[in-house]
Amino acid sequence: MRMYDLIEKKKQGGALTREEIAFFVRGTTDGSIPEYQLTAFLMAVCFRGMTAEETAILTDEMAHSGDVLDLSAFGTASVDKHSTGGVGDKTTLIVTPIAASLGCRVAKMSGRGLGYTGGTVDKLSAIPGYSLTMPHADFMRQVETVGAAVISQSGNLTPADKKLYSLRDVTATVDSLPLIASSIMSKKIAAGAHSIVLDVKVGSGAFMKTEADATALAKAMVEIGKACGRRMTAVLTDMDIPLGIAVGNALEVAEAVEILHGRGPADLREVSLTLASHMVSLCKNIPLTEAEELTKQALDSGAALKKFREWISAQGGDVSVIDNAAYPKASIVRPICAERDGFITKMDTAAIGEVSVVLGAGRAKAEDEIDLSAGIEILKKTGDAVKAGEPIAVLHTSDEERFADAALRYAAAIDIGETAPPKRDLIFGVIR
Amino acid sequence: MRMYDLIEKKKQGGALTREEIAFFVRGTTDGSIPEYQLTAFLMAVCFRGMTAEETAILTDEMAHSGDVLDLSAFGTASVDKHSTGGVGDKTTLIVTPIAASLGCRVAKMSGRGLGYTGGTVDKLSAIPGYSLTMPHADFMRQVETVGAAVISQSGNLTPADKKLYSLRDVTATVDSLPLIASSIMSKKIAAGAHSIVLDVKVGSGAFMKTEADATALAKAMVEIGKACGRRMTAVLTDMDIPLGIAVGNALEVAEAVEILHGRGPADLREVSLTLASHMVSLCKNIPLTEAEELTKQALDSGAALKKFREWISAQGGDVSVIDNAAYPKASIVRPICAERDGFITKMDTAAIGEVSVVLGAGRAKAEDEIDLSAGIEILKKTGDAVKAGEPIAVLHTSDEERFADAALRYAAAIDIGETAPPKRDLIFGVIR
Repeated sequence: MRMYDLIEKKKQGGALTREEIAFFVRGTTDGSIPEYQLTAFLMAVCFRGMTAEETAILTDEMAHSGDVLDLSAFGTASVDKHSTGGVGDKTTLIVTPIAASLGCRVAKMSGRGLGYTGGTVDKLSAIPGYSLTMPHADFMRQVETVGAAVISQSGNLTPADKKLYSLRDVTATVDSLPLIASSIMSKKIAAGAHSIVLDVKVGSGAFMKTEADATALAKAMVEIGKACGRRMTAVLTDMDIPLGIAVGNALEVAEAVEILHGRGPADLREVSLTLASHMVSLCKNIPLTEAEELTKQALDSGAALKKFREWISAQGGDVSVIDNAAYPKASIVRPICAERDGFITKMDTAAIGEVSVVLGAGRAKAEDEIDLSAGIEILKKTGDAVKAGEPIAVLHTSDEERFADAALRYAAAIDIGETAPPKRDLIFGVIR
Repeated sequence: MRMYDLIEKKKQGGALTREEIAFFVRGTTDGSIPEYQLTAFLMAVCFRGMTAEETAILTDEMAHSGDVLDLSAFGTASVDKHSTGGVGDKTTLIVTPIAASLGCRVAKMSGRGLGYTGGTVDKLSAIPGYSLTMPHADFMRQVETVGAAVISQSGNLTPADKKLYSLRDVTATVDSLPLIASSIMSKKIAAGAHSIVLDVKVGSGAFMKTEADATALAKAMVEIGKACGRRMTAVLTDMDIPLGIAVGNALEVAEAVEILHGRGPADLREVSLTLASHMVSLCKNIPLTEAEELTKQALDSGAALKKFREWISAQGGDVSVIDNAAYPKASIVRPICAERDGFITKMDTAAIGEVSVVLGAGRAKAEDEIDLSAGIEILKKTGDAVKAGEPIAVLHTSDEERFADAALRYAAAIDIGETAPPKRDLIFGVIR
């Protein structure tokens, strides 16, 4: 088999066979296919697309191009939740203990944040003592006994996807639906869970800006997952404004704990309960209405909070910090105020994510250090009335220059107008 | 400027500016743009095409990416003829002395053959003593005094085209009209002639199999040449059957000399006179009918033969070999016979070119040695009546195994049927 012929076939609009896709993925992984052939092929895929069958095969082959987490010991109890990335999205910290408290098994290997979207691993680092690595046997034992374990990604997961993604990133071949869907799903399939709930974000702070694009991606991913033998649900949720009010690692942990206490912002509670309900429904194979009852009880009875403390404690985290909200504190904590009277009509949520990076909460480059205490408390969101001089957000950072830069950017990311905009939905739809 | 943005622009169907194309060609030449970006761009061009203006700019930038032959000393007298490649095409050996005898200046740097199409440099090597290299000053002096000089390509001509062509060859991005046209024309522009006649071959032995494809290529190349300030004509000629009766280096030189003596096959004489007339018409800026009179006279008066001897002699070639047809002779010279009565209905001319490679007359790989005496004399061509057992070709080689392989292949390349096919045109059209 020659890569040349695969490029020619795709260029002419043909569909590759399983053998051809396996050859392509193997040659990508072992480096035997030169990068100049890989990128010509990727560009041809951008123009010609891939059939649903090709996309599922590509996903499956990429998922098995490296290490795979074997969760078969947990049968159908293993469940994963994956977000396409947003600002202020700390739902993993909430849905994990809810689902675990109801008998699901959540075994997660999470990534660090890059750019304006945060990473669960960074948030967990804000809890003193929490260990992000552990031997495989210990990890599996904790999933069995506690029901939840979250560690940092390690090993050689989906090397073919890593290589292809890095090439797509520099050759303008990112925006192809089959390539996006197979890239995300290959990592999820390799992560081993039997049931997968996808949180597909829509809006100014999301990869997908429109409901139509998000729906297409969600459908493609659900189809792939099912073709790979997994139980799948995708929930389309709003990311036109940040989720909750906290952006930044320690601030987000604190907010997640508030939700587990039955307090905190309504939007974050609603999205968390929705995602957790779908996880429980899939995993236990029960009707959604029943799962909704269970998750609400888990939250309101304190069972989820108890499970959270148990999980954090099992990984060495200092639960007294959680109980006393004794997280790392920034040296500069200072409000930004509205410049005029009116209503907040629009928040550029990606720009707000960038503000958190400027403050020190995220990484512009993979090798950057982050400041766990840095971030934003959002006091006023889209639709809220504001008065000139009234605080609309509080910025947390350790550096005056960062504060000054971030304050200008935050003001530029907020539009204030005469009338309140119509209210957007929080949940746009569910694809099963 | 970032290559990423150029790829994205072309992918969206945009047209690149001169600055952007110059950046791309410079980065190709100096290696600062990685190959994986070049091939993604080339694939996007295959889908989106290039405007006439973009194609002309690309040609011009590639032409100036390395050494350029400066023929401005000859004013408007310099003229070049370029064939897109065929089998048995020895017209350069004929049109060069015709044009030179009429006051044109033909300064050629020619290539070696690769695959089934021959190269002028290989044919000239069949004349003992002929030198394919000389100092630049001597080359220019010979063009001035004799009117013709043909040497082997040297120096660093169009390195950007070399790099891009080698990448296109392995990424299924060859068949893009703007890329094909700009690749050919960049070499012609760098070769410096003020007037250029293109011989665009059509048929089973040509790169372009159909008249429509050949016409589109010819038009694109003529447009590019004019945009680069050259006088241009393209002639579409038949390559569905070999040109003349000789294929192979020494055999082709002998046939060219026959034409210069006023003898030889009619098709070769007609194509040579047509090309030479267009060269003289362009170069001297005179009507084609007048040029046709002049070239016919040059051939029939012996002036062209005299000029040929003068040119070959000036480069050290042994003219007594030409006068006495004392070329290298193959040890095996043996006929192939028709298997049945009928008419030759079709010759697979590319396959016949491959037969000459098998016999030793051409190179399968660039590093192969060639046998100057090897080749084919074609006795019967498409449309000719044949009897079973009658010789249809004579194969020349030095090796029994090569003969056996070639004989089988030659027979397979010839179709014999009941009725003679309709006669094809020799000249399909002229594009100016």
